[in-house]
Amino acid sequence: MQKLHLLSATLGLLAVASFPAEPADDIKPPTGYRHWFHVNTMIGDKGSPLFADLGGMHNVYVKSVGEAALKKGGPYPNKTMFATDLHEFTISDDSYVEGARKALAVMVKDSKKYASTGGWGFQLWAGGDPKKPQVTDAAEQCFACHQPKKDQDYVYSTYIP
Amino acid sequence: MQKLHLLSATLGLLAVASFPAEPADDIKPPTGYRHWFHVNTMIGDKGSPLFADLGGMHNVYVKSVGEAALKKGGPYPNKTMFATDLHEFTISDDSYVEGARKALAVMVKDSKKYASTGGWGFQLWAGGDPKKPQVTDAAEQCFACHQPKKDQDYVYSTYIP
Repeated sequence: MQKLHLLSATLGLLAVASFPAEPADDIKPPTGYRHWFHVNTMIGDKGSPLFADLGGMHNVYVKSVGEAALKKGGPYPNKTMFATDLHEFTISDDSYVEGARKALAVMVKDSKKYASTGGWGFQLWAGGDPKKPQVTDAAEQCFACHQPKKDQDYVYSTYIP
Repeated sequence: MQKLHLLSATLGLLAVASFPAEPADDIKPPTGYRHWFHVNTMIGDKGSPLFADLGGMHNVYVKSVGEAALKKGGPYPNKTMFATDLHEFTISDDSYVEGARKALAVMVKDSKKYASTGGWGFQLWAGGDPKKPQVTDAAEQCFACHQPKKDQDYVYSTYIP
């Protein structure tokens, strides 16, 4: 079941890679996010509901404009950007070890421009490749899962001191 | 067996917390390391050989002076500092989620001062508390395990693009 999900997700990525979709908007992949504030890391393994689409090690960063809001639990000012650097992982001697990048995903705040999706724009690039955006319908592909986190301004990550 | 190890490690920390040992040298816990370059994250779970002493989620950062060397695989210039922010983790729906800080560990390079331990000074503070250094014999407590990584200048972490 998981394998079928993974396979279909992989084929989906391949199809999009061959016939690039137009991005939903003009969000560009950020650079330098590994120097941003490291918010937390989470691993979605095979049994996780995230696994089919977003399985792997999620390294989450926030641009400095949003750092104070993160520490308060939101709401976030415009221009806040979260980046999730999604990596493969391997398990060896019961250690979970980071592997190659699978994707780069971002949320960027613009309360007017993205009013229909909680004030956030979303994009995900397969392999982190600017030519491989995967989000064509942010409301369905992204915001639907973020909506339950309304009291944290739609952000799953919380500040861990 | 693992529980006994964990228990003895915990008691060890408590004993040291009650009767603080003198630190092996003058290494002070750094601040701001979550803004340093995030090198990688690794989780050592119950079956890992690291578990008794260093089980948990290891978020590893490097100060900018060592970043270029990291990308080459070493050797590292003096004043390079690696910080490992060691956190608890919980498992929920097959996701591994970061929890509270357990410890902060560092390696700092000074090829003369620390010549007997590969040029690196080591320290670990329980709970990240500057008053709770745990390393009194870096050769035995730290360097013994780092020695096999001589070809990477004794650093386990590698650069993952």
